[in-house]
Amino acid sequence: MIKVGIVGGTGYTGVELLRLLAQHPGVEVEAITSRSEAGMGVSEMYPNLRGHYDDLTFSEPDAERLGACDAVFFATPHGVAHALAGELLAKGTRVIDLSADFRLRDAEEWANWYGQPHAAPELLDEAVYGLPEMHRERIRKARLIAVPGCYPTAVQLGLLPLLEAGLIDVDHIIADCKSGVTGAGRGAKVPSLMAEASESMKAYGAAGHRHLPEIRQGLGDAARGPVGLTFVPHLTPMIRGIHATLYGRLTRDPGDLQSLFECRFAAEPFVDVMPAGSHPETRSVKGANVCRLAVHRPGDGDTVVVLAVIDNLVKGASGQAIQNLNLMFGFDEHAGLAAPALMP
Amino acid sequence: MIKVGIVGGTGYTGVELLRLLAQHPGVEVEAITSRSEAGMGVSEMYPNLRGHYDDLTFSEPDAERLGACDAVFFATPHGVAHALAGELLAKGTRVIDLSADFRLRDAEEWANWYGQPHAAPELLDEAVYGLPEMHRERIRKARLIAVPGCYPTAVQLGLLPLLEAGLIDVDHIIADCKSGVTGAGRGAKVPSLMAEASESMKAYGAAGHRHLPEIRQGLGDAARGPVGLTFVPHLTPMIRGIHATLYGRLTRDPGDLQSLFECRFAAEPFVDVMPAGSHPETRSVKGANVCRLAVHRPGDGDTVVVLAVIDNLVKGASGQAIQNLNLMFGFDEHAGLAAPALMP
Amino acid sequence: MIKVGIVGGTGYTGVELLRLLAQHPGVEVEAITSRSEAGMGVSEMYPNLRGHYDDLTFSEPDAERLGACDAVFFATPHGVAHALAGELLAKGTRVIDLSADFRLRDAEEWANWYGQPHAAPELLDEAVYGLPEMHRERIRKARLIAVPGCYPTAVQLGLLPLLEAGLIDVDHIIADCKSGVTGAGRGAKVPSLMAEASESMKAYGAAGHRHLPEIRQGLGDAARGPVGLTFVPHLTPMIRGIHATLYGRLTRDPGDLQSLFECRFAAEPFVDVMPAGSHPETRSVKGANVCRLAVHRPGDGDTVVVLAVIDNLVKGASGQAIQNLNLMFGFDEHAGLAAPALMP
Amino acid sequence: MIKVGIVGGTGYTGVELLRLLAQHPGVEVEAITSRSEAGMGVSEMYPNLRGHYDDLTFSEPDAERLGACDAVFFATPHGVAHALAGELLAKGTRVIDLSADFRLRDAEEWANWYGQPHAAPELLDEAVYGLPEMHRERIRKARLIAVPGCYPTAVQLGLLPLLEAGLIDVDHIIADCKSGVTGAGRGAKVPSLMAEASESMKAYGAAGHRHLPEIRQGLGDAARGPVGLTFVPHLTPMIRGIHATLYGRLTRDPGDLQSLFECRFAAEPFVDVMPAGSHPETRSVKGANVCRLAVHRPGDGDTVVVLAVIDNLVKGASGQAIQNLNLMFGFDEHAGLAAPALMP
Repeated sequence: MIKVGIVGGTGYTGVELLRLLAQHPGVEVEAITSRSEAGMGVSEMYPNLRGHYDDLTFSEPDAERLGACDAVFFATPHGVAHALAGELLAKGTRVIDLSADFRLRDAEEWANWYGQPHAAPELLDEAVYGLPEMHRERIRKARLIAVPGCYPTAVQLGLLPLLEAGLIDVDHIIADCKSGVTGAGRGAKVPSLMAEASESMKAYGAAGHRHLPEIRQGLGDAARGPVGLTFVPHLTPMIRGIHATLYGRLTRDPGDLQSLFECRFAAEPFVDVMPAGSHPETRSVKGANVCRLAVHRPGDGDTVVVLAVIDNLVKGASGQAIQNLNLMFGFDEHAGLAAPALMP
Repeated sequence: MIKVGIVGGTGYTGVELLRLLAQHPGVEVEAITSRSEAGMGVSEMYPNLRGHYDDLTFSEPDAERLGACDAVFFATPHGVAHALAGELLAKGTRVIDLSADFRLRDAEEWANWYGQPHAAPELLDEAVYGLPEMHRERIRKARLIAVPGCYPTAVQLGLLPLLEAGLIDVDHIIADCKSGVTGAGRGAKVPSLMAEASESMKAYGAAGHRHLPEIRQGLGDAARGPVGLTFVPHLTPMIRGIHATLYGRLTRDPGDLQSLFECRFAAEPFVDVMPAGSHPETRSVKGANVCRLAVHRPGDGDTVVVLAVIDNLVKGASGQAIQNLNLMFGFDEHAGLAAPALMP
Repeated sequence: MIKVGIVGGTGYTGVELLRLLAQHPGVEVEAITSRSEAGMGVSEMYPNLRGHYDDLTFSEPDAERLGACDAVFFATPHGVAHALAGELLAKGTRVIDLSADFRLRDAEEWANWYGQPHAAPELLDEAVYGLPEMHRERIRKARLIAVPGCYPTAVQLGLLPLLEAGLIDVDHIIADCKSGVTGAGRGAKVPSLMAEASESMKAYGAAGHRHLPEIRQGLGDAARGPVGLTFVPHLTPMIRGIHATLYGRLTRDPGDLQSLFECRFAAEPFVDVMPAGSHPETRSVKGANVCRLAVHRPGDGDTVVVLAVIDNLVKGASGQAIQNLNLMFGFDEHAGLAAPALMP
Repeated sequence: MIKVGIVGGTGYTGVELLRLLAQHPGVEVEAITSRSEAGMGVSEMYPNLRGHYDDLTFSEPDAERLGACDAVFFATPHGVAHALAGELLAKGTRVIDLSADFRLRDAEEWANWYGQPHAAPELLDEAVYGLPEMHRERIRKARLIAVPGCYPTAVQLGLLPLLEAGLIDVDHIIADCKSGVTGAGRGAKVPSLMAEASESMKAYGAAGHRHLPEIRQGLGDAARGPVGLTFVPHLTPMIRGIHATLYGRLTRDPGDLQSLFECRFAAEPFVDVMPAGSHPETRSVKGANVCRLAVHRPGDGDTVVVLAVIDNLVKGASGQAIQNLNLMFGFDEHAGLAAPALMP
């Protein structure tokens, strides 16, 4: 039984960590912090947890208490993990950061996209990008994990086989992505109101979204060189889910694309390559730590289309964070992540 | 490890049984039948189950194979369990019927509401109404369980404390109930289309709904005498959930209603009496086998209002069926039912 | 052509006034005010209006400019109309207040429910409650209209025939009401987020809601004496619509309830008594200034059930306000209100 | 006042024609046909129309009665207009076909995509493709109109300026399109159930959709040569709306794209080029006959992204059909189409 802490537990990724960890046989939640809600019971804010964490109360962030944990999750806005991660690592606590703080290897690029200096560049070298399908072995030994963003998870998993095999034009990749509204977090903003966001579809950030450099970095690793990516996210009227529709131009005969994808992910416990001709639905992964993929080549032409779905709060955030934890601490990789998706 | 069969597995209660049983440590699904889909893999129809039941295929109903199971669930339209239950019981297989076939003790009343004769009246005496909060001890010994309907579960749990204590006018009870669209099943009907049912609210069956006699029977048991009930169900634009708003007129000083409810359900693992002043949300029970309740007495007047929420597919159907199974076979009552609700 | 102003135009009732007035042949919108958005074009905030009000810009409230209008709508939080109405009336401008400021005849009761003193009690005598189905003749001559609230409109229209005919027990009326999320306004609040309010149903304000005294006042007028009402509103996962389910206990043989309702509203242009046995859907009034009603007497017992649906933003607010304007200025009562509901 | 008939009025495009025509000053609906619902009043099926067409009843298709109309709309499955159009034209009745029957100029290609022979190839020469932004003058004189499909309308309007100006690589155009559920019609099919289609997003027809040849034909006209298009439609959990996200690779310096779009559509009453940097929302066109567009060039790179939204039932079907009617009969092009979109 290991002890974990959660910093910034009032948002959606925080409660999702609690929901999933309630089913984890080897983890005890020792502390969950929130400046704004300190003193409130977690099940007051999240009544779905009544009966599960009845003694757990949001507390002020406290480095002593967190430092006594084996691992600490950061489910915080950017900048918070910068400030605390170093101190926790020094106490021997491992850090699993769900924010963007350690995702970009280049501190300057981070500063450009986030509009503030990177406050912990000395940790970047040892931070491991927590996409197990790319970096499983490094994750096992890591002390500091940068959990990938939701869009980046779906886009990278969908494109890895094509890029690793060198099959598509790396200069002109298109990622048309659709996300449910929890992707925008739990902040009280007018555009996130149900009266504004339901019964509608819109793109946003067409000129440039913060996930763009993260995706480019990951795709570049797979392609072993820089990639050109057009990434357009869309706000979709559903609570959870990301659907990535990915377009690449084939530069040579790709052979059997279905086999390529099946082989690439054959050993992956949380990537499901669906049968040829499938169209994965986001609801098929609701609440579950899985990415389902399908690959199409319309009209046997020179464009390949990959469809990838995840639950943005699970494989796109909290579930993937726990998958990382499982690897770091030697648990079964499925621990806490075994339940099927909720459908319908 | 016991073996179970599921008859009629293609509907929403069927897939929900599979979803929940995937997490049950003591149960193996031996067979799942469907005349219309025989030969299809369950995960073809329900891709959320990919990776969980990859070898399980819908099969033709087969009394031999079902009779080799320790228990069989019926997730069928009414009439099917009438035809098969007796044969299975004779083979020593216990039967847990999610349909309405054995809910009414009076075969004639059943025939009136369902428009066909009751085809197994000889089994009515031994059928046990599977509401653990009323009949736990009888359930433990039962061979044949009639799992309560979704509306009846919410209405009965909300009213039991008041009726058992004799606090309200039994002739004028009102149950205003709101159900998500899965309550109408998976049949392809125009009124269930998203373009028809979403962004709208309507009542239905105001003149009389098939759950009415079942609710009256259960409330009558609690009140030890006949009750007069007005029951108006409403179709609500959400997938899962029932919200029952129950109105009773107090016939005497009720004392502390909050304590009354808390005491009545103190030992119940799946009934959650929320703090005074609460308004339970259906999403707080999404996917979970729990009924959350709140009791109000507006203006300290003579009307008591009870708010009760369940997930119609879980505590209102498949979860409750498994709770019954757990009692019948001596499992921990939480087995397969331990996960928190999915929220948001 | 008359000139109108709108105070507080950024909320949902403000934009709805603009949407409806765009189709009104006799009205020109002269000014629309908003302190927070002064200087912004209305179609920047509400792109559905692009092409309709391209020269109209939110402006600071300005009594001179508003006072030059023939009529001014207040689509403001409570308290604002108190401060400005008197001055406008003195300039000869008629006032149509969509807020609660002049709905209660008793200034003290208002102060109790709204937590602040009534700031214009001297105007209460001349304020007319703008429910045309009750007060059409007084509205025609009024200078100051209190437009009814959304719940009060649905509940009163549904109960008027029964109360006027003295058919039900006035001490024990139940109004179980379901509202879409625009009822909560456009404020940025966590419970109104799509991730919180969709896919869920909950009651709120069971202990007492601000519309309760307004409804009691109106029902009391119809009943010619005080009424006892239990009113429980529910938040429903849809954008627009109110469904009121109303329960009364019959005190004598009611005769033909269907005829009673049809006769009561035969001359009403915006009340639609549906055929016997109907269950009106809120979507059948989406965007339209109509209340559809159905009356049921389940099992021919002593409980009468009325189902009433409106669009909370139209017949429950802005449409009704325009209906009042039409009466006050001698327009056809349908002016600006002729379009059918949007379905599906 | 002209007289029109509607063949196949029970589907969503049929009721939408009625909704819009109720506001048209110059049109009277003389007949509406439906084999399956003959004898039912239109407002029984569509209660939103109560009070508008109270004497209109679905009737059996009757060539005499339809032939007495000035114009007949076909809101039918494919194949029906093939059978009737010739006879009506011979009687001097103009035909506006909302189905796919006359959209493709090549009868063989039609036969390939629709799996049956084209039954009226002799009419193809005179059929005019009813996209006013391309063919307004031909529409004015037409006797037979093929109303464009919903996806084709959005995709063509979004790409016309780029293709006409010869700015993009015509061999590699991508149209990633998202449609609300009314796009699938009113048929009772399991995938269209609210319990299946809400809270989820999925692609469909990635291998080839019937709108593909229609779009290619229209884009080819604009490009004056064949185009290569990858078209992936997605089912989106909303009732109405299409969002097309269009990607083209620039083949030369495009100059000021915003101006290009504004100039191209400056005279178009129903195309709205939004300000630079905009992201149009489908709800901004809900119920209205307008296409809103925005053009982006992310990172000033060589990929241009066009965002186009329409209401699939209005500018994508019934509204566009009425716009055609207005042109053919010399009405104001806005007649019946003047109301703003319903938002929120």
